[in-house]
Amino acid sequence: MLTIIECLAVISGAVFGVLLARRKQMDFVGVFAVACMTAFGGGTLRDVLLDRHPLFWIQHPHYPLIVFVVAIVVSLIPRVPAWIEKWLPIPDAFGLALFSVVGTDYALKAGVAPFVAILFGVITGTFGGVIGEIVCNEVPSLFRPATPLYATCAFTGGLVQVTCLWWQLPFDIVLWVSAGIVVLMRFAALRYQICLRAIGT
Amino acid sequence: MLTIIECLAVISGAVFGVLLARRKQMDFVGVFAVACMTAFGGGTLRDVLLDRHPLFWIQHPHYPLIVFVVAIVVSLIPRVPAWIEKWLPIPDAFGLALFSVVGTDYALKAGVAPFVAILFGVITGTFGGVIGEIVCNEVPSLFRPATPLYATCAFTGGLVQVTCLWWQLPFDIVLWVSAGIVVLMRFAALRYQICLRAIGT
Amino acid sequence: MLTIIECLAVISGAVFGVLLARRKQMDFVGVFAVACMTAFGGGTLRDVLLDRHPLFWIQHPHYPLIVFVVAIVVSLIPRVPAWIEKWLPIPDAFGLALFSVVGTDYALKAGVAPFVAILFGVITGTFGGVIGEIVCNEVPSLFRPATPLYATCAFTGGLVQVTCLWWQLPFDIVLWVSAGIVVLMRFAALRYQICLRAIGT
Repeated sequence: MLTIIECLAVISGAVFGVLLARRKQMDFVGVFAVACMTAFGGGTLRDVLLDRHPLFWIQHPHYPLIVFVVAIVVSLIPRVPAWIEKWLPIPDAFGLALFSVVGTDYALKAGVAPFVAILFGVITGTFGGVIGEIVCNEVPSLFRPATPLYATCAFTGGLVQVTCLWWQLPFDIVLWVSAGIVVLMRFAALRYQICLRAIGT
Repeated sequence: MLTIIECLAVISGAVFGVLLARRKQMDFVGVFAVACMTAFGGGTLRDVLLDRHPLFWIQHPHYPLIVFVVAIVVSLIPRVPAWIEKWLPIPDAFGLALFSVVGTDYALKAGVAPFVAILFGVITGTFGGVIGEIVCNEVPSLFRPATPLYATCAFTGGLVQVTCLWWQLPFDIVLWVSAGIVVLMRFAALRYQICLRAIGT
Repeated sequence: MLTIIECLAVISGAVFGVLLARRKQMDFVGVFAVACMTAFGGGTLRDVLLDRHPLFWIQHPHYPLIVFVVAIVVSLIPRVPAWIEKWLPIPDAFGLALFSVVGTDYALKAGVAPFVAILFGVITGTFGGVIGEIVCNEVPSLFRPATPLYATCAFTGGLVQVTCLWWQLPFDIVLWVSAGIVVLMRFAALRYQICLRAIGT
């Protein structure tokens, strides 16, 4: 079950990167590189900051291969069908939930303080896209007010997770509940276009 | 004393990041993320390159909390008062001095060669702002000729520090003198608008 | 022999960075910083991702010094002579070959799976330029279709290297053949302007 979600999350991260790189008129090298960054960037940053080695995509080398195949397939399509862009947010929301809950959990197990562990969850869940957009020379959409809640969902999920573990609620249930909150909050934000407002305007 | 300067340096780094993110019309996620990068970026890069773990903001988890509070407070102010932008360079200069002297010292203690240790001081003192501006999609002002001497001050301080330690002058005095040189040089550069000229024009 | 090529590769990486920074009207701080990034960026990223410490430019501190001297010399020249830009691709191609073959070799020895080891070769050979261009606020030319094959040469060389080592061909010969393929392919791409096409147009 977890493996399937993780796989789906890597694939949806990669597809997101391919779409980004296509919009920038990149060639296949750019498409594959950006797809790797959006798929692995958040987890890599987490692992480097926490000094966890080998990195998860070095330990599971089929993930880069999957991204390679995704990049080839989506590159061969002359025009990306509209349903991909339309449905992409759904596996992406599950990926956000999984990566942020796992990221917070890894950080807690590495002895990181609760507040900082929540930030690690957010970094794991969201920084792939941030790195991809920086490389594509854009201000990350994660930081802009026109984007529906994304990091905020991961933060809220992490807050619930840390609080419930503090109350010593059963570990498995806490993880599922926190991940569920992230997914539901993200779907609500997408459905009702809930955004944070720009600061200072 | 050192703790107070360090705290002030983290706060002034965070305020610098918040102002940067506000100018880019970011939402709170962007404001907090950029504030973390400007406050912790230089030290994090130093720690990752030197393989020092846990990172200083993981070991002192009250720093991310301070940045969080700074980001909230400065976000709630509808218009940033002019005196903040006017006086910000003062704690910032102390932060530059502290971070660069400490960065060089850590690198020397890790067995790094003197010239490279000076570079580590410069990286620690200056790269927070560089990372923040890259994320905000700007060419780092540190690298542009219109900005008064900044990295050059850190470099000069590091050069004095390494040379004096080579002469086996007393450790504490060397640190204070080097830091003082950084602060004075930075103040002079700000007061008299001393800049490096553009290369190749 | 290897040391000479490595030295040439670092110098040509640094010159590439200086030219990039000059075009952006940077001051000496920017010129030196970008030169360090283009010269050391790829190897540093490889070492951080593989957890190899100390980093190669910390272990060989004369490399940063060489880059410093190159940055000063090329900064003092008011106008860069045309022959430098014209002949730069030649040492650069040898650098690409050396860095990518060595990068793949390090990754294999660290127990990385073959496909991922090839990617490490490509990262080592090419990401210095990518990081430099990101800092200069450009979409990396490596990812754009107007640039003759570069990452593709490193990838092909790595593929040959991994395959031949799999067949247990003699180690030294494999390295030289793979590096030769990278150089020849890069020269052919430059000579005949062989590029990948943009995806999705």
